[in-house]
Order: sequence, then C-alpha cells, then structure tokens
Amino acid sequence: MIDMKEIQVLKVEEGSVVTPIGFKSAGVHAGLRYSKKDLGAIVCDVPANCAAVYTQSHFQAPPLKVTKESIAVENKLQAVVINSACANACTGEQGLLDAYEMRAESAAHFGIKDHLVAVASTGVIGELLQMDKIKAGINQLEPTNTAEAASDFQTAILTTDLVMKKACYQTTIDGKKITIGGAAKGSGMIHPNMATMLGFVTTDANIDSDSLQAAMKAVTDVTFNQITVDGETSTNDMVLVMASGLAENNQLSPEHPEWDSFVSALQSTFEDLAKQIAKDGEGATKLVEVNVTGALSDVDARIVAKKIVGSNLVKTAVYGADANWGRIIGAIGHSVATVNPDVVDISIGSIQMLKGSQPMAFSEELAKQYLEGTDIVIHVNLHLGNGKGTAWGCDLTYDYVKINASYRT
Amino acid sequence: MIDMKEIQVLKVEEGSVVTPIGFKSAGVHAGLRYSKKDLGAIVCDVPANCAAVYTQSHFQAPPLKVTKESIAVENKLQAVVINSACANACTGEQGLLDAYEMRAESAAHFGIKDHLVAVASTGVIGELLQMDKIKAGINQLEPTNTAEAASDFQTAILTTDLVMKKACYQTTIDGKKITIGGAAKGSGMIHPNMATMLGFVTTDANIDSDSLQAAMKAVTDVTFNQITVDGETSTNDMVLVMASGLAENNQLSPEHPEWDSFVSALQSTFEDLAKQIAKDGEGATKLVEVNVTGALSDVDARIVAKKIVGSNLVKTAVYGADANWGRIIGAIGHSVATVNPDVVDISIGSIQMLKGSQPMAFSEELAKQYLEGTDIVIHVNLHLGNGKGTAWGCDLTYDYVKINASYRT
Repeated sequence: MIDMKEIQVLKVEEGSVVTPIGFKSAGVHAGLRYSKKDLGAIVCDVPANCAAVYTQSHFQAPPLKVTKESIAVENKLQAVVINSACANACTGEQGLLDAYEMRAESAAHFGIKDHLVAVASTGVIGELLQMDKIKAGINQLEPTNTAEAASDFQTAILTTDLVMKKACYQTTIDGKKITIGGAAKGSGMIHPNMATMLGFVTTDANIDSDSLQAAMKAVTDVTFNQITVDGETSTNDMVLVMASGLAENNQLSPEHPEWDSFVSALQSTFEDLAKQIAKDGEGATKLVEVNVTGALSDVDARIVAKKIVGSNLVKTAVYGADANWGRIIGAIGHSVATVNPDVVDISIGSIQMLKGSQPMAFSEELAKQYLEGTDIVIHVNLHLGNGKGTAWGCDLTYDYVKINASYRT
Repeated sequence: MIDMKEIQVLKVEEGSVVTPIGFKSAGVHAGLRYSKKDLGAIVCDVPANCAAVYTQSHFQAPPLKVTKESIAVENKLQAVVINSACANACTGEQGLLDAYEMRAESAAHFGIKDHLVAVASTGVIGELLQMDKIKAGINQLEPTNTAEAASDFQTAILTTDLVMKKACYQTTIDGKKITIGGAAKGSGMIHPNMATMLGFVTTDANIDSDSLQAAMKAVTDVTFNQITVDGETSTNDMVLVMASGLAENNQLSPEHPEWDSFVSALQSTFEDLAKQIAKDGEGATKLVEVNVTGALSDVDARIVAKKIVGSNLVKTAVYGADANWGRIIGAIGHSVATVNPDVVDISIGSIQMLKGSQPMAFSEELAKQYLEGTDIVIHVNLHLGNGKGTAWGCDLTYDYVKINASYRT
C-alpha cells in the first residue's frame, strides 16, 4: 500500500502498549479463570483520540455496543477494560446491563467520565459475567507504565492463546519521535473481518480521530483482516487505537507530508500482531504466509491469499510437510477472484512447483525439508495484472482438534 | 421443494446403478492403485438422454472438458468410464490428449461413437494418467447387470472413501415402474458446488435431456450442493444422469402430471448419496444434519445451514460431544444471510438451548449423551420468514488431520 523504502520505521523490541507517552496498563486475577490473570486495563493520562473496528458478525456482544456508545460521544477514550474467560455474548438484556456496569465501575475507579471508557470481553459465549468478581477486580487495577504492567495486561486478555502478543514501532514526524505500541489476543475463531481477536494499540502521535479511523481501516484490511486460523468469526472482537497526542507533532491527517510514516508504523504494528496471532493459532506448529501477485486487483490478490491460507487441506498438508500444491490449486479454483486457469505459477519457499499451470519437476526432499520449518511462505502469481496481497495463517494439527473438542469441559 | 405426501417413492435396498432397465457396469484393477479396483464403467443398451453438473472451480480438469464436448453433440451418452488414483488435473495439453485417448479407447472397446462416452478421473492432482494401464484396463471392462458388477463399479471410483455409496429408488409414472439408481464417491475436498465428488445416476425413465437437466439442477441445489466435509472444492467433480427411456412411460417434462414423482425419486436418490458422502467424510465419526427454518428465503436457510455444518469449531464440538451452541451462533453470525440477532432459536436434537437468542437451562448430561450418537441433528429457527433448508456434514477429528497430513506419502 505504501512505498516503504523512503520511510524509516524502527521496531522497538522491548516496547509495548505503555511505551508511547501517556499510557499505563495493569492486569489482575479477578477469579474468572482458575489462576491466570483475567482482567486488564489500559489508561491514558489524557482523553485520547480513538478509532475502532468491530466484528462483522450479526451477533455483536454487549461490550461492543457499550464501547460504540462511548466512542460515539466525542471519539475519545481514556481507558479500556477487558476481561477474559467470559465473552458476555448472547446474554441479552442482563448482558447489556452488565457491560454498562463494568463501564461505570471502571469510570468511577479511574475517576473519569463513563463515555471515556471502552469495555471488551472474550471467552465462552452465552454465560453471564460474574459481576461481583469483575467489580472487585476493577478496584484492584493500578495501572503503571512498567514492562511488568504491560506483561500483566497482555496476559489478562488471553484465552486459549499460548503466548502474549505485543509489538512496538517508532517513526519520526515533524522531528518528533512517534511511538506505537500494541497488544492482542486471539488463537481460535480467527478469520478475516475481526474474528475472535482483540487488539489494543496506543500511540503518542497527535492525530485527529477521523484521520486515525481512516488509517486504521486501510491498515486493518491488509493485516488483521488477512489472517485466518479456522475460518470462524466471533461475536466480540474489536481493535481499538488510542492516540494521546503527547508526542507533540503537528496534527496528523492524510495531507500531512509525513502521513505515510505514521501509516507505515501503524501497519508494522498491526502486521506484527496479526502474524503473532496466526502463529499462535490453536494447535498451530507453523506460521504460513501466502503472497499473491499478478492478480487483477489487490482485493483479488487478498481473496486468493486468504482462500489458500484458510484451506483445511493446505493447512494439513503444511502440517504433514507434504508439498501438495494440488491443494493450493484447489483453493485458488474455489475463490471468487478472477483466475485464468492456464497461467498460474506456484512456489513453496523458493521451490517452484507450477509454471503456467503445469507441474514442474522439483526435489520432494528439499520441499519436505523446507516444509518442516516453522515459517512457511507460499507464492502464487496469477499473471493477470499488478494486484498483490498477503495473508497469514497456520497449520491444522491434531492439537487443534484436541483443543476444540474439549474447550468447555 | 416438493410436497412429498402425495408421492410414492420407495427405496430399493438392494438396488444400484444396474437396477434401472438397460444399464450394466464393471470395475477392474488396472494397476493405478496398489491392489484395489481403480477403473470402472457404466454402459447403457441404448444411447441415453443425459444431464450433468460440474465443479465450479476455475480449474476444470481435462476429463470434464472432454465429457462436456461429448454431451454437447447430442445430449446423449451410452457409456461413462472413470478411473481413480489420478485426477488428470493440471496436466495441460498432454492431460487433454490423454482424456481424449481414454474416451476413444473406451468407445472402441464398447463399439460406440466417441461422443457417446463420458470420462472422469479422481485422485491426486498434477500427475499424468498412466495411459498404458488405463488402456489395458479399459479392454478388461466387461459390464454386466449383476450386483457384483455394481459393487465392482462402486469400488473402482473410490479414493480415500471408506465405504461404497449407492442408492436406488422407485416410483410409478403412467402406470410404469420407474427406477433410479446411483453410485457416488467423495470423502475429502467436499463442499457445496460439486466439490471432490463424483455421482453417476442411471434411470430407465423416458425423459428428454432438457427436462432431465432442469430436474437435476433443482435437486442438486438441495442435496449434493448442501454437503460439506472440509470446505474444499475440487477440479474434477461431476454428477451425471443417464436416462435409458426403457421404462416406456410417456416422455417426462415439467408439464407431465406425474413430473413431481420423478423429481421426488431423483431427489431421494441424490439426497441418499449426498448423506452417505457426508457421513463418510475423511476421518468422520458422525453424520451432522442442520435444519434451518424461519429464514427470509430457502436460499438464506441453505446458506446458514451450510455455514453451521461447515464450521470447524462446530465440527470439533460435535466430535467432542460438547453442546457448545455458542459456536453455532458464531457460524450463523458469520453468514451472509439475513439474520435478526435477537430472535434466534437453537436446538441440538430435541434439546433446546437458545430461545430468542437467550440461553436456556438444559441438561448438559442429556446433551452429551445425544451428541455421543452417530447421527446428530441441529435445528435453527431464524424467525424471519418461511425459508427452510438443510445441509449435511460430519465431525472434524484427529483422523481428518492424520489422513490429510499424509495423503501423498
């Protein structure tokens, strides 16, 4: 989307949601899970301009409704409070009342207005929040800007995730250092269009909320919406960005000469988190990246890439280190993108297997060796135009079945 | 689609593709597979009016192209020859020449014109047919109308299928007994729109090819196109119907007073085969049927039913006998059908779990007991209109992963 060559974006290895100026976080054990931390918050020193994207499921859980209401007031947030273990979804009127109460309790605890608080929940669908534990937990939240506080927050938002997910990138705008930090959760029920995933991103950039929303939308389409673990979409998912403005650059908008630097840093943060989610897909042993070029449009390229990375048969072949490119053809053939079936090239890693839709001789041994790695890249060239796109996913393993055949029990 | 009450359709337990008057079959071991039969044929005493539906993949394998050419000449077929083990897909110019040669060799062997022969292949993509074996095999084919010959044919078309799939139904038209027999294969790469499945249906009904195509299209949409094993679509799939006309009823068309009897018997045959394919899905231990009512349209109902039955999370929950209706909500929410998120009812078997989108108390023990059975039915009422539809699939198990992580090796 952006020409990355002229833009300096640096990864901050130790960075997190508390690295941008003005942000603190916390995570506590409220007792919703047996022993792990299960309630977290990010707070900002000032009301932060914000932007958000939400699940496209027909069923949007109460916390999403309440968060949307908060943001609608003045497009600002000063705190976001998240619980794991219980999604507060399909919980009707009581669920909505509980989400409001979770917001009110948080606002009171942090001494800010209700509409400056966003709430999010993730976990089992159809159960009510244990409000006594939620409220007690909220009152234990003492946000700080330490690495430990970031880690507590990153842990508290997880469900079946095996690892915490964080990212941090910096760029320079108007001579000021701009930092973007993020945390995310997501492991199963992960698919394009905000499936079961939560993402919380902080930045000290000075940017108005409309511009932030525009940047976020563009960047989400090529990052979070391009990952899939199991083709499922959840009721609860959202990504929030809060911008404190404390870096004191001139206010960013698409007209700002260094706008692309901001978008690029935001994209780096989102992409990094998205790949971490894909790699930590339930039961996954490998990260799979599919790059499609030569499509009629970028949208077509992204469709084909997602179709391949979401194919159960491709995913099991990758798990089995089997260079079964026929399944890649199957997935491409099944997509709604424009495809000329006579001109397709396919490579796995650097090993080309199909040229002009014809099989090429290749070393099965080298292919197997490559597929036994943990980072698999599949390249497809449709030879129709200049459209390109990438998607990320993971392999489908025994453990995916194991985890999901016994999630609640 | 049809009011079944006034129509008499009888299942013929022992029936097969050779039960309708005029049909014979055969199956031999041509040496494409290690020891199993791998080449089969159905032949008719007369050129039979025919109809066909094909995969909607962008990549249609050479045998499909050749079969389409055959049918295009006069909408008649007298023989269909199928090999397993090799799909002859993504095989380019040579693949097309091989498919023509397979057709010519068959036509010569049976002493009929080339354009009265259809060919089909199923198996691994990207490998050329071993034509010496195919040709030798064709010359061993000696079709008869015995149960053993039907069984040989049913076996020869299988790939990872564990069981043969056949069905036979009878009805009466113009006082004449009309028989429809069918055989099918399909286990993995099974999804709506003619995924990796082959179906061969014979009937002695007297029906013109246009009417047969119309009946077939309508019936395919509610049967074969409503099954899914893994969301994959193949390059090779087709369903063929051949009508010998030897039952001597007055020629059938939608204007015939007993048209619905024929369509109903055809639907019974297709649905029976479709369910057998779903139940024999790779690694499956259970047949899952999803009935959706109250949709705005039948199309919407079918979309929702397919979405549920195709959900990896629903499939693993069924495998684990876990009454996790939240995943059914997840799948409904993700569908493109019109849904009011506040009025949905969900039952698993006779146990209602969601009413007006609110959880109901139910016995987890009884639900587990029900889900431990082998035939699971899920009911969803969208409470929006009169649209209804059904889809069939199976659970997702360790064995699915096992089979597909090592298919070629």
